[in-house]
Amino acid sequence: MISKFHVLPKQGMGHATRMMRQLRCFSTPPKYNEGLRRSTGALAALSLGVGVCLGLYISYVPHSSKQVFPLASITPLHELNPPQYGSEEDLKNCIIEIQKIIGDNSVADSEAEIDHHTDNGFNPSKPLPHQKPRYVIYPESTEDVSHIMQIINKYSIPVVPYSGGTALEGHTYSTRPGIVLNTSRMNKILQVNVDDLDAVVQAGVGWQQLNEHLSKQKDMENLMLGCDCGPGAHICGMVSTNASGIGATRYGSMASNVISIKAVLADGTVIKTKQRPRKSSAGYNLTGLLVGSEGTLAVVTEVVVKLQVKPAYEAAAVVQFPSVNDCTRSMASFFKSGLPLNAVELLDSDMMRCINYSDLVTKKFENMPTLFIKIGGLNRIIVEEYIKEVKSISQANHCSSFEFARSAEEAEELFSARKNALYMMLDYGFNEISPDAKMWITDCAVPLSRLASTLEQLNEMMKEYPMQHMVLGHGDANLHYDIFYTPDQYEMCREAVDRMAKLTIANEGTCSGEHGIGAGKRALLETELGEDTISMMRKLKLALDPKRLLNPDKVFKTDPLDENTK
Amino acid sequence: MISKFHVLPKQGMGHATRMMRQLRCFSTPPKYNEGLRRSTGALAALSLGVGVCLGLYISYVPHSSKQVFPLASITPLHELNPPQYGSEEDLKNCIIEIQKIIGDNSVADSEAEIDHHTDNGFNPSKPLPHQKPRYVIYPESTEDVSHIMQIINKYSIPVVPYSGGTALEGHTYSTRPGIVLNTSRMNKILQVNVDDLDAVVQAGVGWQQLNEHLSKQKDMENLMLGCDCGPGAHICGMVSTNASGIGATRYGSMASNVISIKAVLADGTVIKTKQRPRKSSAGYNLTGLLVGSEGTLAVVTEVVVKLQVKPAYEAAAVVQFPSVNDCTRSMASFFKSGLPLNAVELLDSDMMRCINYSDLVTKKFENMPTLFIKIGGLNRIIVEEYIKEVKSISQANHCSSFEFARSAEEAEELFSARKNALYMMLDYGFNEISPDAKMWITDCAVPLSRLASTLEQLNEMMKEYPMQHMVLGHGDANLHYDIFYTPDQYEMCREAVDRMAKLTIANEGTCSGEHGIGAGKRALLETELGEDTISMMRKLKLALDPKRLLNPDKVFKTDPLDENTK
Repeated sequence: MISKFHVLPKQGMGHATRMMRQLRCFSTPPKYNEGLRRSTGALAALSLGVGVCLGLYISYVPHSSKQVFPLASITPLHELNPPQYGSEEDLKNCIIEIQKIIGDNSVADSEAEIDHHTDNGFNPSKPLPHQKPRYVIYPESTEDVSHIMQIINKYSIPVVPYSGGTALEGHTYSTRPGIVLNTSRMNKILQVNVDDLDAVVQAGVGWQQLNEHLSKQKDMENLMLGCDCGPGAHICGMVSTNASGIGATRYGSMASNVISIKAVLADGTVIKTKQRPRKSSAGYNLTGLLVGSEGTLAVVTEVVVKLQVKPAYEAAAVVQFPSVNDCTRSMASFFKSGLPLNAVELLDSDMMRCINYSDLVTKKFENMPTLFIKIGGLNRIIVEEYIKEVKSISQANHCSSFEFARSAEEAEELFSARKNALYMMLDYGFNEISPDAKMWITDCAVPLSRLASTLEQLNEMMKEYPMQHMVLGHGDANLHYDIFYTPDQYEMCREAVDRMAKLTIANEGTCSGEHGIGAGKRALLETELGEDTISMMRKLKLALDPKRLLNPDKVFKTDPLDENTK
Repeated sequence: MISKFHVLPKQGMGHATRMMRQLRCFSTPPKYNEGLRRSTGALAALSLGVGVCLGLYISYVPHSSKQVFPLASITPLHELNPPQYGSEEDLKNCIIEIQKIIGDNSVADSEAEIDHHTDNGFNPSKPLPHQKPRYVIYPESTEDVSHIMQIINKYSIPVVPYSGGTALEGHTYSTRPGIVLNTSRMNKILQVNVDDLDAVVQAGVGWQQLNEHLSKQKDMENLMLGCDCGPGAHICGMVSTNASGIGATRYGSMASNVISIKAVLADGTVIKTKQRPRKSSAGYNLTGLLVGSEGTLAVVTEVVVKLQVKPAYEAAAVVQFPSVNDCTRSMASFFKSGLPLNAVELLDSDMMRCINYSDLVTKKFENMPTLFIKIGGLNRIIVEEYIKEVKSISQANHCSSFEFARSAEEAEELFSARKNALYMMLDYGFNEISPDAKMWITDCAVPLSRLASTLEQLNEMMKEYPMQHMVLGHGDANLHYDIFYTPDQYEMCREAVDRMAKLTIANEGTCSGEHGIGAGKRALLETELGEDTISMMRKLKLALDPKRLLNPDKVFKTDPLDENTK
C-alpha cells in the first residue's frame, strides 16, 4: 500500500486541476461579477482539492494496518508492475548500514572478489542481462543474515545468495547490479546426533567437509550424507537446487535427505520449518517448499540433514551390453527385484570409447554400452547373493561381459573409470576435437521405461549436427548428454541442447534432473509445466518476496520488462 | 481491490458531509446575501463530493489490472480482515450452477448425507464452531472440480475437500455452513507403470484398493504403496495429511512416496506439479508444498505415487526387553548397522498386558516392553543374516526373549498381536474400564535418542491422572500414547493430552507425527514452530486462497474473529 500512496497524490492533483477548470466554467453564471467569480472558483478549487486528498486518504486508511491480497490464485507475468529497486545512493547507504552490523572485513568490492562472484564459468547459456554484482558480503550467523535482510529490504536492493559457487545453470549470476550474500563463512557443523542419524549444520558447510568430519570420529566413521554432487558444493546450495549425485539412486535427492531448515525471509524474518524428528505432519511442509527454490524465496542459514549408513561390505561390477535397450531393461529388473544397489551408472559406447582413449585408467573395456554398479550390504554373504542376482538379470538381458570386484580396493579401481569420466572427456575434447573445444553438459531425466527410446531419438537428432557427444546416465534415469563444441559452433550447440530438452519433455521427461533451472532454463520450465503452474510459483514468490529482492530473475520471470528469451 | 472499492464510497460520503459542513461556515463572509451563500455552499459541496469520488477513483484505477502484494514476508493474524463469505442466497445460486455442471444426482443435502459428512467420530477435541455442511457434492473428474471451484470462488462459499473421511484431527469437519466436496467417486487407477515403479491414480483411490489391484496382476503382484495407514484412507487424504503407517520406517511418509500431483486451486486453475520422472529439479517443489497442506491450498485430483517392491522373502521377530530404554537403544543400533527392516513397532508393558488380556490372539507374551519386527529381503539366506544381526543387537541390549517366525504364515500369526492392537484396546476399555469408556489416540514424534526419556517423563506426568493409558510406537520414534477416559473425565483427558504434546515439543519433538493438525492442534502447532513460521504459512495460504474458501480454519487461524483456543 505504501508505494501506491506515494505515487498517487501527484496524479490526483493532475486530474483535480483539469476537473477544476471544467467546474469553474459551470460555476459562473453571467450575473455574478468578476471578483465574485474568482472567489467562488477559488472556493470550488479548494473544496475539490480537499475532496481529492480526502478521497485518497479514505481509500488508504482502512487498509493501512491490514494485508490485502490479489483475488486470483496465480500471478501471470503481465499482471505485475516492474520491480522498483533502490538507487545507486540507496545501495551505498545499504552497504554502510550492513558494515555497521558485520564489520568492514566482511564487505568486499575489490575487482578480484567481484569477478570471482560474477561468473563461475560453468554455465554456457549465459543469462541476459548478465551483470557484475557491486558488493560481496560475508555474514557469519543467522542473526547477521536477518539484520542484513532487514537493511536490504529497507533500501530495496537485489541480493544473490551464494556459497560453494558450483551451480551449473547460472543460479548465482547477478542480473541486477546489487549485492552477493556469501554464506561460505557459516561453515560450522553444529551437532551430529549419531543415534538419530542426523546432523545440524550451518549453510556454508560443504558435503565433503561433513563426510570428512564424520569419517574422523570413531562412532561416526560409517555415516555419510546421501547426496554426493559436484566437489565444492555447500549444503545450502544443494538444498537450493535439490541436488543429488550418484548416491541418489539409493538415497534420493536432497529433498529426501533434509529434515528441517532454518531460513531468513526477504524482510528479515527468521523461520524454522520443522523440529528434529524424522517424521512430522506438523503444518505446511515448508522444508519441501524451500528445497529447490534456488534462493528466490529465502536465504537458507541452517539445515538438519539425514545421515546414511555406509555399507559394511561393498562390491562393484562393470557389465557391458550390446545395446542401451539391454542396459535399461536390466536396470528396470534390478529395481523391480528389490535389489538395494548403491549406484547404477550408464555410460554409452561413445563415453566408453573416450575412457579407453584416456590414459587415466590402465584398464580397457569394449566400446559398448556399460553399467557401473555398486553393491553394498551388511556382510560378504549378503553381497555375494546380490551379485548373483545382478549377474543373472544381466545375463537374461544379453550382457556380453560381467566383471566384478569384491575388495574395496578392487572396486575403487574398477569404478575409477566412471569417477574420472569428466576429466577424460575434457582431455579427449582438447586433444581430439580442438584445444579450444568446450563441453556443454546437459541434465535431463525421463521415466526409466522411456530412457532407451529417448536416447535413440536424441542420437537420431544429433546426426543433424557435426558435433560429437557422449552420454552419462544415473540409475534414476537422469541423463547427462554432453556435447563438444568449438566457439564458432556455440549457437548451433545451443539450438541442439534446446531441441534435446524439448524432446525429453515430449517423452514425459524433465529439463532438469538435478542441476536446477537458474537463469538458463526458464523458458524450458514453462514448456515442461505450463504457464499456469509457473504463475502459481510466481504467486508464491511475490507473496514471500514482494519486492523481488532475492535472486531476481531466476527460475521464472518476475519482471514484465524482462525480454530474455531463455 | 474489488471488495475495498465496494466498502469505501459509503464511508467516503460520511467524511465528505462532515467536512462540507465545516467548509460552508468558512466559505460565507457576511457581505454575501443568503441566496448567494446557499449557491456557493452548494457549489463547494458539489466540488467536494466530486473531489472525494475522484480521489477514490484515482486510488483504484492504476491497480485494477495489476496485482499488488503486501510488503511483508509473513501475515500475522491481526493484519487480516475477517473473511467475507457469500450469503444464504449466494450458496443456493452456487449449488444451482454446480448442479448444471455435475447433475442433480451428484449434489446431496439429505439429513443422512449431511450427518455422515459432519462428524466421523474420530476426533475427541472437536473444533469450535463445529457446523453441519449444507451440501455435499460429488465431482468425477479434474475438469468437474475446476468448474466447481470457479463457481464456488464466484459466490465465495466455504468448501471442505473430503474423500475417505478417516482423518483423526477434524480435518474434514465444517466450521462454516458451506459445501463438502467429496472426491470419492474419482476412484480410477489410471496407469500402473511397472518398469518405472509408479502408478497414476485419481484422488479418491484407496491405498487398499490400489494394493488389491496390484496383487491381482501377474506382473505387479510384488508391488505395493509404501504407506499403509488407517483402513479406508484415500490417496488424496494421505497426501493432504502426509500420512504414513507401519511401512514408513522403511519407505517414509507420503512426502517420500509422491512423484507428482494434479490439483485445482481456489479460483479453478488446474496445475500439475511435476512430470513423471522420479528425479527432478524443475522449479519450485510444489509437490512438497501440497503434501501435508490438508486441503487448505488446493483440491488434489490426481497423484503419481511411487510403488515399492514387496520383499521376496520375509520373516518376523518379537523381542521383549526389561526396559523401554533397552528397546530404543536396540532400535538405534538396528538403524546404525544399516539393517533394512520393514517394520519396527514398540509396545509398552501396558499395551502388552492388554494384548495378553485379549482373546483375539492365542499366543501370550510377558508384560514387558516389546519390539515387533518385520525383516524382508531378496531370499532366505539374506534374511537369515539379518535375523542373526537383529538377535545379536537385541541380546547386547539385554533382551529377555527373542522369538522369530520364518514362514509368511508364522510371521502373520506372530504379528497379529500388533495388527489387532487397536481392537484389543477398545475391547479392554469396554470390559475393564467402563462400557462408555473412550480412547484418546495421541500422535507425537521425537528424535529416536529422546524417545525413552520422553516416555519416562510422560509416564511420570500421567501418574497425576486417574486414567489408564497404553503406548504404541513406530520405529521412526512416532508415538501413539493412548488414554482411556469416561465422559466425565473428558476435560481432564484433554488437559493431559495438551500437556503431553507440550512435553514432547520440549523434547525436540512434534505434536503430530502422521495425523496432521486439522482443527484440533492449531495452538500446539504455534507452540511448536513459533508465530513467525505460522505467519509464513498464513502468507502462503492467503496468496493461493485469498478468499479463504478451502477448508477454512484448519492448520492455523485465518480469521481474526476466531476465538477458538485450540
